[in-house]
Amino acid sequence: MDERRLVWTAPGTLADLNDLPRDARAQLEIVEIPADPLADQRLAEVRVLIPPLVRNQADDGYDLKTLIASASRLDLVQALTSGVDWIVDLIPAEVTLCSVRGAYDDLMAELMLAGILAVYKEIPHHAAAQARGRWEPRQVRVLGGSRVLFVGYGSIAQCLEKYLLPFGVEVRRVARRPREGVDGISELSVLLPGADIVVVLTPLTAQTQGLIDEEFLTLMKPGALLVNGARGLVADTEALIAAAERGKVRAYLDVTDPEPLPDGHALWSAPGVFITPHIGSLVPENRERAFAVVRENLISWARGETLRNVVAGDY
Amino acid sequence: MDERRLVWTAPGTLADLNDLPRDARAQLEIVEIPADPLADQRLAEVRVLIPPLVRNQADDGYDLKTLIASASRLDLVQALTSGVDWIVDLIPAEVTLCSVRGAYDDLMAELMLAGILAVYKEIPHHAAAQARGRWEPRQVRVLGGSRVLFVGYGSIAQCLEKYLLPFGVEVRRVARRPREGVDGISELSVLLPGADIVVVLTPLTAQTQGLIDEEFLTLMKPGALLVNGARGLVADTEALIAAAERGKVRAYLDVTDPEPLPDGHALWSAPGVFITPHIGSLVPENRERAFAVVRENLISWARGETLRNVVAGDY
Repeated sequence: MDERRLVWTAPGTLADLNDLPRDARAQLEIVEIPADPLADQRLAEVRVLIPPLVRNQADDGYDLKTLIASASRLDLVQALTSGVDWIVDLIPAEVTLCSVRGAYDDLMAELMLAGILAVYKEIPHHAAAQARGRWEPRQVRVLGGSRVLFVGYGSIAQCLEKYLLPFGVEVRRVARRPREGVDGISELSVLLPGADIVVVLTPLTAQTQGLIDEEFLTLMKPGALLVNGARGLVADTEALIAAAERGKVRAYLDVTDPEPLPDGHALWSAPGVFITPHIGSLVPENRERAFAVVRENLISWARGETLRNVVAGDY
Repeated sequence: MDERRLVWTAPGTLADLNDLPRDARAQLEIVEIPADPLADQRLAEVRVLIPPLVRNQADDGYDLKTLIASASRLDLVQALTSGVDWIVDLIPAEVTLCSVRGAYDDLMAELMLAGILAVYKEIPHHAAAQARGRWEPRQVRVLGGSRVLFVGYGSIAQCLEKYLLPFGVEVRRVARRPREGVDGISELSVLLPGADIVVVLTPLTAQTQGLIDEEFLTLMKPGALLVNGARGLVADTEALIAAAERGKVRAYLDVTDPEPLPDGHALWSAPGVFITPHIGSLVPENRERAFAVVRENLISWARGETLRNVVAGDY
């Protein structure tokens, strides 16, 4: 009789989970999610579920919400993503959801700084001039001395702040939960007009959806730079396009709504808007970074120890 | 009788020099370089010369070398540039040459990091995809953990190092003058093969001209990134194009040889080479930064105090 507890993991990920320590391996039976999981006789035994990185229901042929709801002994859902907006609403109260939050902090922060510097140094213009084989210098801006406002102050923002401080920038921070050095969201109307760079790195929740709306953009300093590294839905795309078209703000976006942004969408050509296609964690080391967190949580769960990155409360 | 000592400054720069303290003003008679300086009767009285920022002999109608050699009482030439390769050879032994070294350190370092991150995050590709209105994510690289080799370790390199260290890079340094933490140029052959990023920030001298030659590029780690923020002539352009074409190295260049790089030059389209057109100090604050250094030196010179940024020895 096998007393090991059943872990269902996304197809193709078994090899990423195979170097667990002996005691954890003795506790866990890790197998791939079967082809027709809702009809599988072991569904009721599943204790841990690691869903696919990118869920495409049409391809998978099953509904993740139904799967989670039907796994009656499910204790833990371990996402392979840092943001969990795509799955958080599918999790029953008695099931724990963990993310891989932190696995990509430095990558995201590197990309945010790359985007900020690209805008400040007119990199898209100069790259286009190079493509035409033309020497066309354009005046650039100084990052040093800028006032940076973080909207959302989690681990990515903290990492980006660490990268930005040596430039001699002045930093302010707002977040849902005010604390030492971090103001509440209610301070936004006071702080937005003074910021040269507004970096939005909130999770996507009911509270943050549409946060970057016409009022938010109107409060921003003329010509300031908006950076969205959160989720596309945190911004009102139409309001953003309108603000860019009247020259009110510049923007660097690694996320958009909709996403992928369709060919020829008006946001692509909004003046002063630089877009990268959600590439923050798109590195060769991506997978290993995520699974390092997942392995650690599997070991902790097997041992009954505290889990990392538990998604709690109102997210 | 006017006992003030004569300062000739570039046309259009008088207003930049007008808020000197009373004691320095009482010492100095500051006037613009006349239209025909070699024929001017006061040429022999000139004690300080501040030549134009960008000298275009065809426009100016006089030869700077002759002017400097003919100003028999000349004591100080204060350049408005950080690099002085364009003027150092025109200065007689008894005349002091000062640069505005340091005025643009942070700007240059910001641009070098912008260029490095542009290459690491495929910014030129993503900007081009945006221009076509297409969502075309390309895999990016992690800067953190990279091994960075500085070739030349002056004030710009030190500033860039300050910006790079929070990413968790490993830094090595070589320079003409070995010292604590800085190896001699002779160590290049040992250090080049281990570096992921080679940042060249040397002055242009007889010793550094053509430093980045075929041998240098061959010693570099395959796929490593060469950054030239020094002068175009520090690199052998043909060798660089050849190395890029065989996929040996990538490069980010803010300087080229020749410069400006002619329309359609082969370097524009060398694979993996990103070029900005010498924009390091091209900011609105550029002029004020340079003249802050110049004013300080004029005051020191009037008072007989030590000058900043004296170009000494073999430069």
